[in-house]
Amino acid sequence: MPQQWEEISIKAQEKLKSSLPAEWCIPEDKLPPKGQKDVTIVPKECGLLSDLELGITDSYATSIVKKIAAGEWKAEDVTRAFCKRAVIAHQLTNCLTVVMFDAALARARKLDEHFSKTGKTVGPLHGLPVSLKDNFNIPGYPSSVGFTSWALEPMEQESTIVGILRELGAVAYVKTNVPTAMMIAETANNCYGRTTNPLNRNLTSGGSSGGESALIALRGSPLGVGTDIGGSLRIPAACTGIFTLRPSYGRFPHFDARSGLAGQESIGSVHGPMARSVEDLRLFTDNVANASPWLKDPKCIPMPWRSVELKQRPKIGVLWSNGIVTPTPPVQRALRKVFAMLKSKNYDIVDWPATDHTEANEIVGRLFVADGGKSVHKILEPTSEPWRPEMKDYSEAPELSVYDLWQLQKQRTALQKKYLDRWAACEGLDAILGPTTPYAAPKAGCFKGVSYTSIFNLLDYSSTSFPTEVLGDKSVDVYPADFKSMGEIDETAKTDYDPAEIAGIPVSLQITCRRLEDEKVMALTAKVVKDLTA
Amino acid sequence: MPQQWEEISIKAQEKLKSSLPAEWCIPEDKLPPKGQKDVTIVPKECGLLSDLELGITDSYATSIVKKIAAGEWKAEDVTRAFCKRAVIAHQLTNCLTVVMFDAALARARKLDEHFSKTGKTVGPLHGLPVSLKDNFNIPGYPSSVGFTSWALEPMEQESTIVGILRELGAVAYVKTNVPTAMMIAETANNCYGRTTNPLNRNLTSGGSSGGESALIALRGSPLGVGTDIGGSLRIPAACTGIFTLRPSYGRFPHFDARSGLAGQESIGSVHGPMARSVEDLRLFTDNVANASPWLKDPKCIPMPWRSVELKQRPKIGVLWSNGIVTPTPPVQRALRKVFAMLKSKNYDIVDWPATDHTEANEIVGRLFVADGGKSVHKILEPTSEPWRPEMKDYSEAPELSVYDLWQLQKQRTALQKKYLDRWAACEGLDAILGPTTPYAAPKAGCFKGVSYTSIFNLLDYSSTSFPTEVLGDKSVDVYPADFKSMGEIDETAKTDYDPAEIAGIPVSLQITCRRLEDEKVMALTAKVVKDLTA
Repeated sequence: MPQQWEEISIKAQEKLKSSLPAEWCIPEDKLPPKGQKDVTIVPKECGLLSDLELGITDSYATSIVKKIAAGEWKAEDVTRAFCKRAVIAHQLTNCLTVVMFDAALARARKLDEHFSKTGKTVGPLHGLPVSLKDNFNIPGYPSSVGFTSWALEPMEQESTIVGILRELGAVAYVKTNVPTAMMIAETANNCYGRTTNPLNRNLTSGGSSGGESALIALRGSPLGVGTDIGGSLRIPAACTGIFTLRPSYGRFPHFDARSGLAGQESIGSVHGPMARSVEDLRLFTDNVANASPWLKDPKCIPMPWRSVELKQRPKIGVLWSNGIVTPTPPVQRALRKVFAMLKSKNYDIVDWPATDHTEANEIVGRLFVADGGKSVHKILEPTSEPWRPEMKDYSEAPELSVYDLWQLQKQRTALQKKYLDRWAACEGLDAILGPTTPYAAPKAGCFKGVSYTSIFNLLDYSSTSFPTEVLGDKSVDVYPADFKSMGEIDETAKTDYDPAEIAGIPVSLQITCRRLEDEKVMALTAKVVKDLTA
Repeated sequence: MPQQWEEISIKAQEKLKSSLPAEWCIPEDKLPPKGQKDVTIVPKECGLLSDLELGITDSYATSIVKKIAAGEWKAEDVTRAFCKRAVIAHQLTNCLTVVMFDAALARARKLDEHFSKTGKTVGPLHGLPVSLKDNFNIPGYPSSVGFTSWALEPMEQESTIVGILRELGAVAYVKTNVPTAMMIAETANNCYGRTTNPLNRNLTSGGSSGGESALIALRGSPLGVGTDIGGSLRIPAACTGIFTLRPSYGRFPHFDARSGLAGQESIGSVHGPMARSVEDLRLFTDNVANASPWLKDPKCIPMPWRSVELKQRPKIGVLWSNGIVTPTPPVQRALRKVFAMLKSKNYDIVDWPATDHTEANEIVGRLFVADGGKSVHKILEPTSEPWRPEMKDYSEAPELSVYDLWQLQKQRTALQKKYLDRWAACEGLDAILGPTTPYAAPKAGCFKGVSYTSIFNLLDYSSTSFPTEVLGDKSVDVYPADFKSMGEIDETAKTDYDPAEIAGIPVSLQITCRRLEDEKVMALTAKVVKDLTA
């Protein structure tokens, strides 16, 4: 007899499946074979999308809102196109948890009516479909956060960002898959299962915003909202070759986004946009920051999106390795390529040492499990849902006392101070360039360690992840014969590495500025990307 | 045989006493009698200060820096004048813990040399003596935080604000008394004893920045820096009729200020200026915020001091009572007077209800003792120092687990959201006007409850305390015959109230704007004060 959690899992998946219009689904027998790794061509070739729908969904968010505002496209057509492509993306990668197609189409029609009556948009995101990670609350729909306990429970409240996006004119239409508690760097849970990477389905799409990354990489969404507490925006963005910003805490309204570690504040969870270009991220960042979110979210800083002017010769520190895990060969190659480009374009480049990175990694690990996994346990318990093996640290951790937590917070603050002082000592330093993860994208189940991203959560620095134009190449991306591992994780990364799997996979890097330098890191990322492709 | 803590207490007091130059001290037999309540006239009448020194010390900080910058006064003379008056203030109220006169005078001479050589000041605070609460670290001097364990231990590091003030040209010359762990609303500890209120020495000067308030009220300092986690700037300012700003967390650099609850972050401790006018506070706020403290303190927000324009008709909500303790009669009278003035000047006035204030008070109380008093216990233990009776809550509290703390933090965030939403619903509300404390100033040992101030720590709102020009008047400030208490604290406030003791004591009120509206609350306070005195 199935356990309660298994019954819920089946129900939740059935509910999702039955809410996908049959006419928008690829028939079972026409689906690409399980063994087909790269499925990015399927939306175009499956025949379900019209030319207009392909044109719409292949467009950037910034073009879409312009075309709608110019009266060239209707919000309803745009919404339907993305609903359809999202269904296909889900069939290919299992990236969705909730669909809200009827509500979205009704909303889009209302927006079209408004536009045809007034000739005006309701806001700068008028008619833009926006996908949301499955921890943003929308009344009437569940926010599973990957738990069976929560998968069938409709929420009553609305997360602040959801309301702001609506006021800006956006159309919410799907919610996307996450790992259990959003505390795994891949996207797999006991309720909806695993989301795969559309570029190679043997690989993970990353996590925890990995439903988003798979969906956006397949162009089933022009703009998504994910969250990041240890790398959960940047890791999935890197695994699928899209763009993201992990902003500093307090820039964007995070109130009442559902969490697996509710009340945990030692490292602040933030949300941020995921998209296919820096400009599309800016469509989100500028408009949300300028919507005065601090009037609605008590944690938001009253700081509109500021203009920033980059130096003629930005000074960039390159982090070649964090001393915990060596970047795998394609990531090393991407670093070298970008380094060479920056040099050639007369950027001021210095090496940035991995000082404090090991300590930061240890502190982060201890802070996340400071409650001895009790928060997660209390959500698993009602349906007897078992712990995922990836969450061993949580299931085995002893609970700390408040005094011990305070000591750990002191240690974290001291590290923040040391890091800031080293930054200041490296006179004029604008940003750090380094790996987002050690991987192009690892095989499903093989993501080990979030240390390249989580240090910047601990520091609350502003980071982007961006694709470098480097693609994995099995002929050159091999470990050197004399490779010496720095430890267990490093050794495992090498063992798990398979040059054949990363062939053609885009390699991403991370640019980081200091705390609340969100505008600067975005401007710098735009510049680097432009210089890379020029 | 005295215990170790008693020996240290004697040593620390002797050390302090022996560091006061005899020629600057009022001879023991010339000191006012213990029974003399008001000692504010003593500095002028004791004959130790020259006319120039009286002129200097009676001046506002803003005038002092102008006169030094104009070459009218020498930094050395200014510094010596305040050193001398601080000694007198200490003899009268026991407000100091550490003096640094030689270093201060040497520094002042260097500043004078610089000025005479270059004709320029080193910064906007050039030559201004600034007093510091005894938890700001200066290398070579202890930071007792009221503990015998720490009273003789010289610090190695320098707090960020100390360095910034120096760079701005300020002269550090004394450190001021605090209660044990800075967690009592009066200023009394087992090492240095009790600081009294110079306006009436039967009354407390408030706490925890009560060494500062006594010193500044006696004009032994033109500008002081205190801290506030539950009211520790505003309470002592109110008890002595001076001005202060409790800024929101992250505006001013608090790094490495010593704490009795190190690592506690559920409610952030902040520091702020204390002085005799809003303009003098601004001398601190503008210059410190514009010194880019975020490049040195990882918790500081990159937000220079912003210009703000008040509405023609500011909208003010009046909090007549917080539902926990009724303001004592002089405070009620001050509220009525200011209310009438605001009405007459055409401010838009509404009543502001005490919704959420009781819950906030409970949460604050639980958060401060979440470690079961362990942090304080570990500092008391090495010298066998006993718990102060005022800290009963700390000595008796059970330690929470991290999970329980997270739940409490969730509850606090939910309350922050409710409060913010109510503010938004009161359309156009600019500020809340209410009591700073229930008292003009209570008798020593009688301060009960910090609920009027601590809610704004929980909310992280920006608050000032300012004197209203109302003075306690025993002929009118009496409880009504039909007074009904709201509970135990309220009853005690009435029982402890003695109209004779508050005669002539200035009554202060609190103005509060939302989080990070520091500029606005300062501008509004300046306007209200101007309108009150016009």
